[in-house]
Amino acid sequence: MAPAYKLTYFAVKALGEPIRFLLHYGNIEFEDYRFENENWPEIKPHMPFGQTPSIAICRYLAKKVKLAGANDLEDLEIDAIVDTINDLRLKIATYHYETDEGIKESSKKTLLEETIPYYLTRLEAIVKKNNGHLAVGKLTWADVYFVALLDYLDSMMKINLITDSPNLQVLQKNVLNLPGIKEWVAKRPVTKY
Amino acid sequence: MAPAYKLTYFAVKALGEPIRFLLHYGNIEFEDYRFENENWPEIKPHMPFGQTPSIAICRYLAKKVKLAGANDLEDLEIDAIVDTINDLRLKIATYHYETDEGIKESSKKTLLEETIPYYLTRLEAIVKKNNGHLAVGKLTWADVYFVALLDYLDSMMKINLITDSPNLQVLQKNVLNLPGIKEWVAKRPVTKY
Repeated sequence: MAPAYKLTYFAVKALGEPIRFLLHYGNIEFEDYRFENENWPEIKPHMPFGQTPSIAICRYLAKKVKLAGANDLEDLEIDAIVDTINDLRLKIATYHYETDEGIKESSKKTLLEETIPYYLTRLEAIVKKNNGHLAVGKLTWADVYFVALLDYLDSMMKINLITDSPNLQVLQKNVLNLPGIKEWVAKRPVTKY
Repeated sequence: MAPAYKLTYFAVKALGEPIRFLLHYGNIEFEDYRFENENWPEIKPHMPFGQTPSIAICRYLAKKVKLAGANDLEDLEIDAIVDTINDLRLKIATYHYETDEGIKESSKKTLLEETIPYYLTRLEAIVKKNNGHLAVGKLTWADVYFVALLDYLDSMMKINLITDSPNLQVLQKNVLNLPGIKEWVAKRPVTKY
């Protein structure tokens, strides 16, 4: 029988990787369909809004693999931190994909000196006081989302974002050791992002 | 007894208004705490990440007031369209709050000629084939979110975004006539955004 799910994404980790992490964690079979950049123009018109709704898909899969909250209030806490991580991702991506070199340099400075320290200090403090997790004191898809996205964020900034965040480092190690995810990371295709 | 909820937001509609719409729709008592712009610097440090997690709050309230999906797949469809609306909101806000006049003019042109027609054509088509709604063929918080945000989007662009979208106009009218929301819109403070 063919897998029930097919993930259509670029041949990179980026926003596809949290989805892949959740599917592998839940031991859910799926077709990991990767297209090349040059094929994007022919695929894009078939996407409802020219892109993939990655966070909505992650939230859906999180329920399937039991990494959602135990109640509405827990889901609120998880959703808020996931949106926060995504805000940071968007700020970094806006810099990374900027084509004007002057604007890009100035954005880089703001990111390195202000934005990234601001977010990372707060995320580190949350994990420290929260039993080693980003939300509700236990493993949720917020942890998986953050760790799966980290390679992409690091690649765009050309730094290790959590180098001064020991609690986030432990979280990363723990997520990368989860059953399903550990095996996936060991065998996944090597990509730039 | 004091209301169980307190909404802390700027004295505008903007991202606070979808939250207010959902609370009023559900007849949930809340303190609508509005601060002035000049007080934001003293309030900001008390917000976990210097801002309000408005979509996460809307999703939480939607469950309380029975405007969420009936199952995980319906929630996926709702979440995807809400994220899409928020993408459009972010593109418009990026233009609106741009301080470089040259960049701002060029962003405005792209928005008016490409981005807004792209999104609005697709949203209009969805509502047309979807029983007058943005998701799952019935009233959900996606409809409320879109209509509540529309004033803000219109104000930032200084146009009526749905002027060529008859189905979105009907949706707007229907949402603005919902019990609780109708009374709220009639009495809410007049604000620029």
